[in-house]
Amino acid sequence: MALVVQKYGGSSVADINKLENVARRVVKSKEAGNDIIVVLSAMAGETDRLIQLAHKVADEPDGREYDALISTGEQLTVTLLSIILNRMGFRAKSLLGYQVKIVTDRSYTKARIFHIDTKKICKELKKGTIVVVAGFQGVDKDGNITTLGRGGSDTSAVALAAALKADVCDIYTDVDGIYTADPNICRKARRLSRISYDEMLEMARAGAKVLQPRSVELAKKYEVPVYVRSSFTNEGGTLVTKEDVEMEREVVCGVTYDRDQAKITVVRVADRPGIAARLFTPLAHHNIMVDMIIQNASLEGYTDLTFTVSRKELKKAHELVQEVAKEIGADRVAIDADVSKISIIGVGMISHSGVAAKMFSALAGEGVNILMISTSEIKISCVIQEKYTELAVTALHDAFGLDKR
Amino acid sequence: MALVVQKYGGSSVADINKLENVARRVVKSKEAGNDIIVVLSAMAGETDRLIQLAHKVADEPDGREYDALISTGEQLTVTLLSIILNRMGFRAKSLLGYQVKIVTDRSYTKARIFHIDTKKICKELKKGTIVVVAGFQGVDKDGNITTLGRGGSDTSAVALAAALKADVCDIYTDVDGIYTADPNICRKARRLSRISYDEMLEMARAGAKVLQPRSVELAKKYEVPVYVRSSFTNEGGTLVTKEDVEMEREVVCGVTYDRDQAKITVVRVADRPGIAARLFTPLAHHNIMVDMIIQNASLEGYTDLTFTVSRKELKKAHELVQEVAKEIGADRVAIDADVSKISIIGVGMISHSGVAAKMFSALAGEGVNILMISTSEIKISCVIQEKYTELAVTALHDAFGLDKR
Repeated sequence: MALVVQKYGGSSVADINKLENVARRVVKSKEAGNDIIVVLSAMAGETDRLIQLAHKVADEPDGREYDALISTGEQLTVTLLSIILNRMGFRAKSLLGYQVKIVTDRSYTKARIFHIDTKKICKELKKGTIVVVAGFQGVDKDGNITTLGRGGSDTSAVALAAALKADVCDIYTDVDGIYTADPNICRKARRLSRISYDEMLEMARAGAKVLQPRSVELAKKYEVPVYVRSSFTNEGGTLVTKEDVEMEREVVCGVTYDRDQAKITVVRVADRPGIAARLFTPLAHHNIMVDMIIQNASLEGYTDLTFTVSRKELKKAHELVQEVAKEIGADRVAIDADVSKISIIGVGMISHSGVAAKMFSALAGEGVNILMISTSEIKISCVIQEKYTELAVTALHDAFGLDKR
Repeated sequence: MALVVQKYGGSSVADINKLENVARRVVKSKEAGNDIIVVLSAMAGETDRLIQLAHKVADEPDGREYDALISTGEQLTVTLLSIILNRMGFRAKSLLGYQVKIVTDRSYTKARIFHIDTKKICKELKKGTIVVVAGFQGVDKDGNITTLGRGGSDTSAVALAAALKADVCDIYTDVDGIYTADPNICRKARRLSRISYDEMLEMARAGAKVLQPRSVELAKKYEVPVYVRSSFTNEGGTLVTKEDVEMEREVVCGVTYDRDQAKITVVRVADRPGIAARLFTPLAHHNIMVDMIIQNASLEGYTDLTFTVSRKELKKAHELVQEVAKEIGADRVAIDADVSKISIIGVGMISHSGVAAKMFSALAGEGVNILMISTSEIKISCVIQEKYTELAVTALHDAFGLDKR
């Protein structure tokens, strides 16, 4: 008997038949003697529909109202699943963010969880109830509804698993695990049976869509074993876990790409202290995440500063940067929305030299020009022209022999 | 400057254009210097869609989950309207049942309001906020979402107006007031400029769909002036108010019909004490509302007992009654779903004789057979075969000269 958190994504709850399928999986695990907390996303496409609705009535919808609007999708799936489970003769109860209490800060659309009150859930589990929690949503201390950002249901699930000290957090999705590359664009991609938190984190940050990066951070922090698997088969799965001795330290474990990138260059800006701070402070105030930042070597006291933001935030970021650029006397601000980021990830990188060189030559071999480079201990990312994305992924997958174990 | 509650029904918020229209009306009243609480229904058809969804997955959906599901429609409209109002430069905030706190009992699908906490609303009004409250929903003392039954948003609005001691409660709908009969089936129907709470109550109970009966009870109890008007024009309107000297005591002020009727007859049951209690107790336990009850004069110690229920509840009621009928040795149970109820209403009835006789002859004149009769001080209702509904309404409207002032 174990305490299990099961999270089902949008494609797993996309319609009533799929919800019935989820119910059967939940019941099977319940009948095996487990205590179960189910976390659900909204039906695939529903959150997007709600977002569009909000943007139809306002360019910049009020954050508080926006979150209360887009969180309704999960209310639908959790209540429907609970109705199905009750019909099947099981005690089941849906809990929304404010009912659990999943307390967050008040950063609407990207709130962070402060605290999860486990009392209500534990009380229900003791009664044998299957607890069905609405993912993606929380509540601030004043009772305002907040949401946790794209893929936030992963974070809900891992946070609940951590708070409840669950034995495992199963993330059910439409793929059967984590792959060495996106199988949709790389034919030879191979499923990994295990991956370390750090690698998973870098992959998620670098564009792998399977898990929200924050959920992996949380899983790492609280050492929650996360098992990524398909809700449509019983095969496969990838365990995201601590790096341990059994784990082969692969030099490179995966290639990822992220098309949600846009490049901003502040051209010919005086190279003196405080300039970067002046550029990035307004972006931070507007909650715009800056990804890569590159500053060229100074030439005659001037430099170019290039950085990337999410494509959705390019317009706003451009406006903000243009204002500052004027104040600090920069030549001009150039933007490019047709770029993508390609990354290779692997804990073994630290102890192997020549990984970066191999990456650059593989790209050069295909005629792909590198626009920006950034490295971490276990990751190398390159910004390239978007049209080369598939080509670059396949070339790197081959170069590092990822199709072979 | 006044404190105004404005309630907009499903047809007034049916799409984004209509929500923009509502926003303009709200703003107009706000700019006139009023403090405004807006109460919204779900978009027309949305609650029905959610109800169907629930019934697709279970014949008898769990009540708690059902209410949490069907209350999402209002969450959509209140957040969208608040986004629009904010975009227009006004402070606006949506509040759900649990956020206000509209505390109800736990009778899911037909909860009754115990208490409304006005603190949060008053605080927001003081800041100049337009407060947009989700109609139809409340919360029990343990934080479970409840709903107030069909048309419950009317009750939300009147209850808020009562709790806040509002100057007026405007009920915006797709008709421009209360008519002497349904204009869709009675060409000569005339709009009333005023109607008393008691008459409105009987009309609502007797099938007039404009206001939920409970909202009228509340309005009467707390003397809330309710103004029924169209959200599409500025003309017309009917004030529902205390009966006062100015008010012409019309003998009959309106004719209503209700097709949501089904008749159950327990045939040849022993006429002894306790039989009725045994028949109706199980119905009450299943929250089935019994409308008219008629017991024939006893013949040789036996009697027939006939009553009506909502058509939706006929199946369940029939099952329950059949069980009891067997136990108490009744001959059999007959049902008829093809009936409707026709009523005439008027406070003047009390002081005028011959009203009933006139009603019966008008029906007889058209060859309409009367299956059941029930009377109150200000109402006479007849159950007839459903196919005669339109005919009966028109005949009674003519007989009582309702087209003339």
